[in-house]
Amino acid sequence: MSAKPPIGPSTRLCMSLAGRPGKFGSRFHNRLYELTGLDYIYKAFTTRDLPAAIGGIRALGIRGCAVSMPFKEAVIPLLDHIEGSAAAIDSVNTIVNDDGWLTGYNTDYSAVLDLLDHAEIAPSTPFLLAGSGGMAKAVSAALRNRGHRAGMVIARNAATGRALAELYGFDWAATADGLTAPLIINATPVGMTGGAEAENLAFPPAAIEAAETVFDVVALPIETPLMRAAEKAGRKRISGADVAVLQALEQFVLYTGVHPSEEQVKDAAVFARSG
Amino acid sequence: MSAKPPIGPSTRLCMSLAGRPGKFGSRFHNRLYELTGLDYIYKAFTTRDLPAAIGGIRALGIRGCAVSMPFKEAVIPLLDHIEGSAAAIDSVNTIVNDDGWLTGYNTDYSAVLDLLDHAEIAPSTPFLLAGSGGMAKAVSAALRNRGHRAGMVIARNAATGRALAELYGFDWAATADGLTAPLIINATPVGMTGGAEAENLAFPPAAIEAAETVFDVVALPIETPLMRAAEKAGRKRISGADVAVLQALEQFVLYTGVHPSEEQVKDAAVFARSG
Repeated sequence: MSAKPPIGPSTRLCMSLAGRPGKFGSRFHNRLYELTGLDYIYKAFTTRDLPAAIGGIRALGIRGCAVSMPFKEAVIPLLDHIEGSAAAIDSVNTIVNDDGWLTGYNTDYSAVLDLLDHAEIAPSTPFLLAGSGGMAKAVSAALRNRGHRAGMVIARNAATGRALAELYGFDWAATADGLTAPLIINATPVGMTGGAEAENLAFPPAAIEAAETVFDVVALPIETPLMRAAEKAGRKRISGADVAVLQALEQFVLYTGVHPSEEQVKDAAVFARSG
Repeated sequence: MSAKPPIGPSTRLCMSLAGRPGKFGSRFHNRLYELTGLDYIYKAFTTRDLPAAIGGIRALGIRGCAVSMPFKEAVIPLLDHIEGSAAAIDSVNTIVNDDGWLTGYNTDYSAVLDLLDHAEIAPSTPFLLAGSGGMAKAVSAALRNRGHRAGMVIARNAATGRALAELYGFDWAATADGLTAPLIINATPVGMTGGAEAENLAFPPAAIEAAETVFDVVALPIETPLMRAAEKAGRKRISGADVAVLQALEQFVLYTGVHPSEEQVKDAAVFARSG
């Protein structure tokens, strides 16, 4: 399989910074390096000193860095430039190092945008969006940027929910009870493995039944309760696993300039999930 | 061969910092990680910002770092503790990171010491030592520490040569012309691949002829002109390649706590040189 050279002085390092590093990124990127024969390695890190970690990326010429919770906002003042969409949502999940010049991107945002495009969801489609955190902000910005105007942010927290809705010109409601829309999107941790509401649905069954497309941003498990319910109801689905793969692929392209084949991406995605 | 797991969040990174990174360290350490099944990777770096690079090692929990020219002295004030022999020669070639606490070692010093022990050279043996740079200092300290008292530092540069000789209680001469001793050691770049004196001998033929043991600290090529002349004269030899392997092995043990077998070390040394 591998034309990948042994690690040497010319090998480029890419990395991730997360409060709790996972396996997905290491497995996905390293597999793609092997499949494409690129002289790169990828390693997950955590840190208790974010400024020194970013200084190290710059000083050691580490080519790229994925940024996860809780560093996505804190990293912004440490970089040299923030790309437009990442700046708009105050959230960086990707750093590209061009000879010491660090640019922040948000590939969650661009992956959500691309997945909505790919599913051919018309910008006129009304939506319900559950959540008011960082990921909900990225989804809101993507929806707004596609031209969606009729949408409702669903969040128990009135302060953050209203603020997010107002920022992008949407409406707000505390719960989805009694609400329906052709597009429903979960950007809360409901349904996430290991979370407090791992077994719960982010939307009432009636909202799932009434939707055309159900989008769950939760990536673990691959089949969340919401995705299972959407499948049972025969609805079109976009999963958090799709977001995870697409955003990682966009990082890969930013770091290496190489576009792997669909088959290679599929292989790497399956490998990354099997770890 | 490999029980080595794929790179993941628990994988430890070791690295090197050098003005001009070479292949030897990457190949030697990564090969030993594969042979021993250790969940480590090794990557060579350079930097234009040493303090930020060391800060990054600390902040990212990079387990260990080999330090080469021109960073061996400059790194000292950036560390938390300097082990005795490294402090004595003002030269660190190895950093061990224990949960953010950085200790500096000099495994060139300890490798020279071990090789002289292993060759069973009596501390009463007089020597000629060519050179007055960092490596000559490490060799002088090792000789002094073994109990050698009768020795001559040979250096065209009178200031550095005299200073080094005085520091360790040895004598100094500008050239080895007309001098002989049972142990002669080259710690200059004479004979080094790509150097200005790659084809030259660091000692006059008469000194080689009169010696019992010839020690060349130059590691590249493996067979320097001095080592070839010593072989031709039937003298006992200690080579720079021996130093390179032994000092790298001592780094490996410091980083991992694991002692590889002689066979594994031999394999890794051959692999590292073949790159």
